[in-house]
Amino acid sequence: MKKILLQLDTDAQPSVFDAVTAYDGGADIVLQYCAITPVNVVPLLHGVMFTRGGEGIKNSAVFIGGSDVAKGEALLDTIKSNFFGKSRNSVMHDSNGCNTTAAAAVAKLSRTIDLRGRKAVVLAGTGPVGLRAALFLSDEGASVTVTSRRLEKAGKACEYLENRFGAKVEPAKAHDEDSTRKVLEGATVVLCTGTAGTMLLPEVIWKGHETLKALADLNAVPPYGIENIGARWDGENVGGQVLFGPLGIGKLKLKAQRTCVGRLFETNDLVLDAREIYKIVKKMQ
Amino acid sequence: MKKILLQLDTDAQPSVFDAVTAYDGGADIVLQYCAITPVNVVPLLHGVMFTRGGEGIKNSAVFIGGSDVAKGEALLDTIKSNFFGKSRNSVMHDSNGCNTTAAAAVAKLSRTIDLRGRKAVVLAGTGPVGLRAALFLSDEGASVTVTSRRLEKAGKACEYLENRFGAKVEPAKAHDEDSTRKVLEGATVVLCTGTAGTMLLPEVIWKGHETLKALADLNAVPPYGIENIGARWDGENVGGQVLFGPLGIGKLKLKAQRTCVGRLFETNDLVLDAREIYKIVKKMQ
Amino acid sequence: MKKILLQLDTDAQPSVFDAVTAYDGGADIVLQYCAITPVNVVPLLHGVMFTRGGEGIKNSAVFIGGSDVAKGEALLDTIKSNFFGKSRNSVMHDSNGCNTTAAAAVAKLSRTIDLRGRKAVVLAGTGPVGLRAALFLSDEGASVTVTSRRLEKAGKACEYLENRFGAKVEPAKAHDEDSTRKVLEGATVVLCTGTAGTMLLPEVIWKGHETLKALADLNAVPPYGIENIGARWDGENVGGQVLFGPLGIGKLKLKAQRTCVGRLFETNDLVLDAREIYKIVKKMQ
Repeated sequence: MKKILLQLDTDAQPSVFDAVTAYDGGADIVLQYCAITPVNVVPLLHGVMFTRGGEGIKNSAVFIGGSDVAKGEALLDTIKSNFFGKSRNSVMHDSNGCNTTAAAAVAKLSRTIDLRGRKAVVLAGTGPVGLRAALFLSDEGASVTVTSRRLEKAGKACEYLENRFGAKVEPAKAHDEDSTRKVLEGATVVLCTGTAGTMLLPEVIWKGHETLKALADLNAVPPYGIENIGARWDGENVGGQVLFGPLGIGKLKLKAQRTCVGRLFETNDLVLDAREIYKIVKKMQ
Repeated sequence: MKKILLQLDTDAQPSVFDAVTAYDGGADIVLQYCAITPVNVVPLLHGVMFTRGGEGIKNSAVFIGGSDVAKGEALLDTIKSNFFGKSRNSVMHDSNGCNTTAAAAVAKLSRTIDLRGRKAVVLAGTGPVGLRAALFLSDEGASVTVTSRRLEKAGKACEYLENRFGAKVEPAKAHDEDSTRKVLEGATVVLCTGTAGTMLLPEVIWKGHETLKALADLNAVPPYGIENIGARWDGENVGGQVLFGPLGIGKLKLKAQRTCVGRLFETNDLVLDAREIYKIVKKMQ
Repeated sequence: MKKILLQLDTDAQPSVFDAVTAYDGGADIVLQYCAITPVNVVPLLHGVMFTRGGEGIKNSAVFIGGSDVAKGEALLDTIKSNFFGKSRNSVMHDSNGCNTTAAAAVAKLSRTIDLRGRKAVVLAGTGPVGLRAALFLSDEGASVTVTSRRLEKAGKACEYLENRFGAKVEPAKAHDEDSTRKVLEGATVVLCTGTAGTMLLPEVIWKGHETLKALADLNAVPPYGIENIGARWDGENVGGQVLFGPLGIGKLKLKAQRTCVGRLFETNDLVLDAREIYKIVKKMQ
């Protein structure tokens, strides 16, 4: 019996990245669907819930993707509420790669340094990856600050994290060198999750910073978020500071996504969202 | 050479149910297409007619699905008229699961009792499954009545059966307990194919009914069509009456659909619509 | 690692023909995408560029199809400009089958007769296949004339060939028996690429023509482009003249398309458009 992954994408075209990665993760067949909403998803879901009985049902699983995390979360909630009893399939949510990318970055940081009781800052952290990273850093015991150019936006992002995941993180405004320097006071860890091509952390701030020991950057388009980082750095030690560039993290992200898809076919009752994915990725190292 | 099934769906999204079942039935690859009409189907059809010569052509086949049986039938007619000589592929029509579901139900009833000369009633039988079931019951030699809440609707349904399949069945109105009791007078077999969640046949009528010996219900959402039936009953004997619930029938329906898809790849000239599918399913038991 | 072909189609439905042929050519999985433009293609392309590192990247390739060659060429140009360094995948362009069909026809003609210094005429040659054929004939050393019912249209077609491929061919008007007879004066080779069902070359002109030695016709719907040709003729010798009908050429076209798709997975840096495809097809014979 073929392992069939139902790829539900909220965008106008289903992601090629997710499909290729699913095949590499062990799916035999990926059924690609796009423009999926909580309304049109139900009959599609029934197509995996009711076609394979008994042990066979674990050979059908669901992947939720697309660029919009809020839409992906709404789909996940709808799907979970339509399962009943043993009539359920394993499901993974990774809209915009938010979970696997953030999990890969934080797993690398947490391997570098014990995060318990440390201050961690996610610069430009209100996007899908930044918020997941803040959650994982917080779960690791760090005291987390999420920054934005607008304090209000950072505040709303923190509210979201508390409402959906019960995580408490601090909002802060960081819009220039001075405010960035200030928010990093006493921080051990910093992660940049800003817009592609935008430098957020000048070398003059990070290099030789008194407390910063582990730094990571997820911006893959130069100029990078951390000035003068190497995109392929994967634990580069620069005078006692350890740095991870976007491509260094990207390898683990890709492996993480493949691994998680593979897990979906082991039982029929997995729900892989943020924390479940982080747990898997942390053990992968 | 891979066995490729061209899934032509008349709905806005192609059915996941049909795709998964096709893979389980032996297709190596299912090419999923949606929003298919008699106009846009032609170039797609050419894509299976002209890509594999000689013996190879039987490795490409066509499946017509979607929620609208009339649209599916129009597609089937167009496809058949576009084949010529040896340039043809096997094709199966099962819009809304009409053929495989009705075939599974009637096959179970016909195994229970010899239908020749008996009266069979299809309650709320003007939908796609009910009409196919009426056809199969009629072909088995039963004298068939199809009911609706509106006599006119039942009449039109019977006209359709005569026009498309040359089958003669009787229309009747059944909208409450009295009219239902009346239409069942002298009936040996009853099948409920009404709307999900609508009870059609109260226990006070069916239980211990003088002539009713075999009863089946295809409504899978409680309350079921036959009051106090068990959804998983698969030939349950209740005081001499034999009952089949929706999930009991559903297992055979699923197996029927897989088997029929598998048959498509044995030769290149099968046309599996109502009667051809019933023949296959009857032999499966 | 599965060989994955990203099928990018510019039409509203992705071609079934191209998908089936890709599977027969060696693709394990074809990801079908439709309505592709230079704008929406970029994230899809990233999905094959960034999912498989090192040697693995050659297991992902791109196929551009659809009925509109200009749209296909625009896609090809966009795709090529988005590759960088080793981050690239092999890509094939064959919108409307233009390259494989024309290559098959000209390969057959060039096997029949040395084309160097000969006059070759492409009747009704301003469509996608005719233009590619004119290019290949010209590359083989023939002096090529492309005809149309309107001289202006033929002229524009020739400009296109010079602008995109640097090939010089002559435009001519051929709209009736006299003008057709005139354009064929001194010609050794003629290829008909007109509209399906339109006869372009009456037997009274071609049969026993003083100089015409090799004739080919790509119109597969009777009446054929060359009067009284056999659709399956594959090098039929009629009194010293050699003729190729649409189905005779079609076999090689199909084999050519399969072979080219297979090549895509051998390295990650092939760009198979007109000339590269012709080279492959010529060696196939």
